[in-house]
Amino acid sequence: MADGIFIVFEGGDGVGKSTQTSLLAEWLADQGREVVVTLEPGGTAIGATLRDLVLNPSWGDVSPRAEALMYAADKAQHVYEVVLPALKRGAVVISDRYVDSALAYQGAGRELDPDRVEQLNRWATRDLLPDLTVLLDLDPSLGVAGIAEKDRLEGAGDALHQRARELFLSLAERDPGHYLVLAAREPIDEIAAAVRERVASLLSPA
Amino acid sequence: MADGIFIVFEGGDGVGKSTQTSLLAEWLADQGREVVVTLEPGGTAIGATLRDLVLNPSWGDVSPRAEALMYAADKAQHVYEVVLPALKRGAVVISDRYVDSALAYQGAGRELDPDRVEQLNRWATRDLLPDLTVLLDLDPSLGVAGIAEKDRLEGAGDALHQRARELFLSLAERDPGHYLVLAAREPIDEIAAAVRERVASLLSPA
Repeated sequence: MADGIFIVFEGGDGVGKSTQTSLLAEWLADQGREVVVTLEPGGTAIGATLRDLVLNPSWGDVSPRAEALMYAADKAQHVYEVVLPALKRGAVVISDRYVDSALAYQGAGRELDPDRVEQLNRWATRDLLPDLTVLLDLDPSLGVAGIAEKDRLEGAGDALHQRARELFLSLAERDPGHYLVLAAREPIDEIAAAVRERVASLLSPA
Repeated sequence: MADGIFIVFEGGDGVGKSTQTSLLAEWLADQGREVVVTLEPGGTAIGATLRDLVLNPSWGDVSPRAEALMYAADKAQHVYEVVLPALKRGAVVISDRYVDSALAYQGAGRELDPDRVEQLNRWATRDLLPDLTVLLDLDPSLGVAGIAEKDRLEGAGDALHQRARELFLSLAERDPGHYLVLAAREPIDEIAAAVRERVASLLSPA
């Protein structure tokens, strides 16, 4: 169905996802590829509003189920409006976060039934899986500490972030052919080089 | 779990749900009951924003799955923030629309898998079912014609509203013990009297 390539960066806050996204996008553009850089939550106008509903504490106490459903709605709109049309044009789509973040934070983090949260997100995204997910792995206490302004999730405590990290890693272990796990404390250039090497193999399959 | 009574009015636009909600609330207050009047979508601050995301055409083309998920999120927040706390206090909660509207409009109307939409909404609402749903039944062409300003769903054509009406009726037929189906073209006072009679039996079970 889709002719493009779908690449996702995952990991906790402060691990360098947006930096690596930019570096990869630049390199791909140099190769002459059309690149679409996007993010979740908030990659569409509707998604940006949903993101605010979930993360801005001024909305008050959000039900965990409502939160999971709003994140899934953000993903549904993102795939429908941004990701699928770009892939159909043959573009490389790079997304800062995707379904794994929902599984990590709403599933493990908020202690909803993980199978239900996965089912919800697979339905929302029409079972569209990334060709490659790059997991930038870091001890959460180091990642979160790098961000001054705390929003709702960042204020939710270390235990949530520890469980989220474990869930990110377990997803990668489940499907190594579609994951690249890198230590986020390595130098930026070394990480970028490792990402380029793996992505190059997707651009010109052997 | 819940000591209060949960009553829902369902039916198409323009059938008189808000009028009947007010009349019933007034009568219940006269009986000395605490009454909480609410609505879906939009019965909470988060829900009101979700309602705008779905219904306001300025947000552009909304994915059918995102729409279903946003309505489900609205319901999750509504049950969590408004309905359950009021029922636990022993109040009578009267809601203008609830899960049946999601099933009617997203399921039958938008042609998503109805079982999936039902499952989504049951999960969102923690399987909380109304003690009584009053369905105000009307030929959709008469109901919609009574509303001057069309929003997205109201502009979506007669076929959707015809399918929604059939689905409302089929839900009522499936569980007659929890439904009261009334012809919305009857005089307001006669409808109100029929509703009061049925609700009275819930207040003082034989």
